[in-house]
Amino acid sequence: MTIKDIAKACGVSVSTVSRVLNNRPDVSEAVRRQVMAVVDRQGYIPNNSARDLVRSQSDAVGVVVRGTGNIFFSDVLKTISREIDAAGYTMVLRQIGSDEDEVKAGAILEREKKLRGLVFLGGRFDYTPPELALVGVPYVCCSFTNCFGTLGDDDYASVSIDDFRTAYRAVEVLLQLGHRRVAALVPSSEDRSISQLRCRGYLAALADNGVAFDPELLAETGGCFEMEDAYRGMSALLDSGADFTAVFVLSDTMAMAAMKALHDHGRRVPEDCSVIAIDGLSMSEYTVPTLTTMVQPAEEMGRESVGILMGMIRGESGPRHLRLEAQLRRGGSVARAPDRSV
Amino acid sequence: MTIKDIAKACGVSVSTVSRVLNNRPDVSEAVRRQVMAVVDRQGYIPNNSARDLVRSQSDAVGVVVRGTGNIFFSDVLKTISREIDAAGYTMVLRQIGSDEDEVKAGAILEREKKLRGLVFLGGRFDYTPPELALVGVPYVCCSFTNCFGTLGDDDYASVSIDDFRTAYRAVEVLLQLGHRRVAALVPSSEDRSISQLRCRGYLAALADNGVAFDPELLAETGGCFEMEDAYRGMSALLDSGADFTAVFVLSDTMAMAAMKALHDHGRRVPEDCSVIAIDGLSMSEYTVPTLTTMVQPAEEMGRESVGILMGMIRGESGPRHLRLEAQLRRGGSVARAPDRSV
Repeated sequence: MTIKDIAKACGVSVSTVSRVLNNRPDVSEAVRRQVMAVVDRQGYIPNNSARDLVRSQSDAVGVVVRGTGNIFFSDVLKTISREIDAAGYTMVLRQIGSDEDEVKAGAILEREKKLRGLVFLGGRFDYTPPELALVGVPYVCCSFTNCFGTLGDDDYASVSIDDFRTAYRAVEVLLQLGHRRVAALVPSSEDRSISQLRCRGYLAALADNGVAFDPELLAETGGCFEMEDAYRGMSALLDSGADFTAVFVLSDTMAMAAMKALHDHGRRVPEDCSVIAIDGLSMSEYTVPTLTTMVQPAEEMGRESVGILMGMIRGESGPRHLRLEAQLRRGGSVARAPDRSV
Repeated sequence: MTIKDIAKACGVSVSTVSRVLNNRPDVSEAVRRQVMAVVDRQGYIPNNSARDLVRSQSDAVGVVVRGTGNIFFSDVLKTISREIDAAGYTMVLRQIGSDEDEVKAGAILEREKKLRGLVFLGGRFDYTPPELALVGVPYVCCSFTNCFGTLGDDDYASVSIDDFRTAYRAVEVLLQLGHRRVAALVPSSEDRSISQLRCRGYLAALADNGVAFDPELLAETGGCFEMEDAYRGMSALLDSGADFTAVFVLSDTMAMAAMKALHDHGRRVPEDCSVIAIDGLSMSEYTVPTLTTMVQPAEEMGRESVGILMGMIRGESGPRHLRLEAQLRRGGSVARAPDRSV
């Protein structure tokens, strides 16, 4: 049913129906009641995209999620959705694959929905100013920064953990328990992205603690953080005969696959090999043994991202960069290094 | 940059720019080049919602996903997205919580985006015709049917497994291995939805195999399929001292939490208790032990849903109802019932 059908059914003009639907004062109460009765009876829902074109400002805030299968993002998204609602705006969501272009998706969404602002949940770390010129509204990078790119600090806002430091701390947990042969399982050591940052943290922790880096212990899985790649990478490391008593894994789901590979190779976790990861999914509390992991503050990340964005939309504050602290959640996958008589 | 800015920059009229952007033939090649040069340089993206209002038909197909944290749905969604693309349409995605109204979300999306059709990925099983009258385009229910509702078979299309039969077969796997004390872990036995259907399958399998139903072994967790609820429900069942050697669990993620509860109570899987579930997530191949589960054909479900919808949109075929077969994937979580001298 269109606005024309309603006008016809009520015997009034289209513009009168439109005035009723937009709560304008210049309509008599009798006509308002008559129109709303038809609207309610017929289940008419206003065509918002048409209305947005007429209104000077929409209330839409876009969220582009990169990586549909990323379980960590679902947790953050719940908070983002609630906070946008609470601020009196409407969330418009677009999910894209890990190999798609979030900037283009955001720019298209901006034009389609007349966005007031944008949250990128996941994205590349190496934007250039011309690329981001496509985006004409304030935006916040949630869970990542532009540390491999050329944006100025005033060009964008970001909320994330410090990936380098969090990896550093995770590896230190292992070193403090006496581990010296510590492997790393990451998609890539030079992807100009999260994997490279966390790999650097691993290397720095080894160096600062006087442990020589053994290239044999760096297992690069390739791919997009898939469990299948992690299982294969961990199995290859085990099959290579490399000697290690602990492994630092890029993410929780990759760590689940790594624990499975260890189990299938007859290695007990944590007795024969300790496992530590970064993410802190709720799901990781249900692995056997419970995964020890650095918890990213999903709720705080979502809340702060929307908070910063609202300040920018309302013109109250400029772009800011917030680094949040990850917290170690001790599970049962990390133990003291086995005693070795050398 | 708007279409007006481009017109001004090129010294041509707005309607000329519009003709270029819409690939109309009535523009000279020189003007076309000039306009596109500005468009390319400035990164202008056409305002599709404005264009959709002018065009007689959009190419948008809506997908409403109910349950943002449902990992099974992410797998189906990948296929749906690819198939909609392949059919030459554009997917418009909306994700809502398990407690939200998918029909209303779909109806709003339909008006906003001038949808040609809709896929509901997850939803209620008890629609009434007046509720669905809100939706004015063809739609397919993916992963569920209307078996507790009053829609006629010609009113809607659906693609799903047979939940009753799949649960029945899962429980039979346990019974054939000699289990007689078989528990069930489900959110609810009377939610007029998936949980009730699978619970009925459990009860029927027991009855058909001459095993008396013991109400003590039916653990209802409440909630929306959360792992936390499943862990608590399984723990309560174990604490109650109930006697059982196997458990049928509604979903894979709930089964992961159940296995953890068994482990934390000192019960070995499968030696002391077998565990079987329904879903077949890729993730379940990485649990220790590997989960034995009835695999829903995620890819086929997505492909068939879009196929049926396309037939309806193009007026080539009417609504159909497709029941797909789930396949048993044997893992390591099910074993023969322990020998008991009674």
